[in-house]
Amino acid sequence: MTTGTTLPDFAKRLDQTAEDTEALLAKLLSDTLLSDEIARPKRLMDAMRYSTLGGGKRLRPFLVVESSAVFGVGRQSALLAGAALECIHCYSLIHDDLPAMDNSDLRRGRPTCHKAFDDATAVLAGDGLLTMAFEALSHPDTHDSPAVRCELVAALAGAAGAAGMVGGQMIDLIAETRTLDIGAITRLQRMKTGALIAFACEAGAILAKAPHELRVALRGYAHDLGLAFQIADDLLDVEGSAEETGKPVGADAAAGKATFVSILGIERARAQAELLINQAVAHLDLFGQRAELLRQVARFVIDRRT
Amino acid sequence: MTTGTTLPDFAKRLDQTAEDTEALLAKLLSDTLLSDEIARPKRLMDAMRYSTLGGGKRLRPFLVVESSAVFGVGRQSALLAGAALECIHCYSLIHDDLPAMDNSDLRRGRPTCHKAFDDATAVLAGDGLLTMAFEALSHPDTHDSPAVRCELVAALAGAAGAAGMVGGQMIDLIAETRTLDIGAITRLQRMKTGALIAFACEAGAILAKAPHELRVALRGYAHDLGLAFQIADDLLDVEGSAEETGKPVGADAAAGKATFVSILGIERARAQAELLINQAVAHLDLFGQRAELLRQVARFVIDRRT
Repeated sequence: MTTGTTLPDFAKRLDQTAEDTEALLAKLLSDTLLSDEIARPKRLMDAMRYSTLGGGKRLRPFLVVESSAVFGVGRQSALLAGAALECIHCYSLIHDDLPAMDNSDLRRGRPTCHKAFDDATAVLAGDGLLTMAFEALSHPDTHDSPAVRCELVAALAGAAGAAGMVGGQMIDLIAETRTLDIGAITRLQRMKTGALIAFACEAGAILAKAPHELRVALRGYAHDLGLAFQIADDLLDVEGSAEETGKPVGADAAAGKATFVSILGIERARAQAELLINQAVAHLDLFGQRAELLRQVARFVIDRRT
Repeated sequence: MTTGTTLPDFAKRLDQTAEDTEALLAKLLSDTLLSDEIARPKRLMDAMRYSTLGGGKRLRPFLVVESSAVFGVGRQSALLAGAALECIHCYSLIHDDLPAMDNSDLRRGRPTCHKAFDDATAVLAGDGLLTMAFEALSHPDTHDSPAVRCELVAALAGAAGAAGMVGGQMIDLIAETRTLDIGAITRLQRMKTGALIAFACEAGAILAKAPHELRVALRGYAHDLGLAFQIADDLLDVEGSAEETGKPVGADAAAGKATFVSILGIERARAQAELLINQAVAHLDLFGQRAELLRQVARFVIDRRT
């Protein structure tokens, strides 16, 4: 089990996948690029591109690519599934930032979609990206087998819907008026951020038609990784610099939000994240050396500064 | 070619499909019904049910069922595809009614979703329904063949996304600040309402793995039917009673919206709708008696009072 420093080519692989994902998203979003504003919604496509292109670590696509690499799945398939997942992630940020939701003006140091365009365009850009994710997954380029594509659609819809991310968002809104305990926050985060991360890790197994027990092992890894990821996020909110994270420091505390850090304190939260990462990595024993990159991802998730 | 009065059992079939669709949607929305508000988002499910259950003609599901019946497709498959389509239709109404969009307080004579709940819940309920549509289509109950399920996902995503309904919504918003000519309105409506109706009619052919030319014929039928449907809507806006339509009479004119009626006038608009219905029905010649119900649907669409 390796949980030490990251391999020298880890950063290179992360960057390469981010670059490839960016190129693929740009292609997906330009295939429907249309020029005449009245005949076709250039403004909509501009808003979708604004909130999807131009950055980010692309951690979720990276997890899809690296979970696929474990099984030797073709890179193009993995990148397409990763791009579809990123569309879901980006749509959720657009809708989250709306005045009706978190009312955020800044995202990654830039005006949010509804600030750069307007509220109505942001609602529609989110709807368009959400829909595009399923169009991409169902496309034959994603995988030769319709059964595999169907399973990807079902898994992503399950992770993104009312029993997953959208449900987590709802609980998060309700939680603003209540005090959550650690169990409730864990459930909330498992749905809100964990479900998409779990899909990312399972996607490789789905694309590879891997045996059930390997898929379950990846799910276990993803589950622990997702929670550690969220704790790291909460730690960054109190410890990170605005310059590094691109958002105001202490935003959660200012909003009166209960987080892992507000309940556990910094030291215990960090220890909990470490514990979860060790647990996550233990799930990978089945895969031996093939999962070395996924072990590095686990380390990266709690060591990152942004 | 029959464009006369409707068959005696037409109304019965329409009602039966509405009833079956309602039951299926209730089932889909209760499978994820969860009781503890903090652990699981009961409020989200309540909002999704509020805007999906309890009424409507279910014209889109009816088109799926009747286009399926032409090919002898199993009713359960057709109902599931129809229910998925209805989820898309209902989500689009929730998001359309938002203050950021049309800012409507009433829908079918009841408070709109964001009025009955709140803006944030309405955004999420729409997102949840949109996602659920693809979960339902990808489910094995919809069809034995993953290839068919995949094709349904691709077709619905295409019809509902930036090149279809969502794109049409965007153009509609842009149009509020411009004067549209009849060509622009036709393009707008073809995307905004026509795309989902086209999917409804093609769904039967997809479920039946029908030959390409039959699918093309249904698309032609759907295209003309969709425009006639919209013209009938515009006519109802100026001629219908609020009691019958469940929304204020003259709302389009009050909003300064260009419609088929505002451009063509009532008489020419009605003549245009008649012409389109005759064209729609002509596309069905290929199917002979098997398409009798679809001919009745065409007549119904422009004769309806709500």
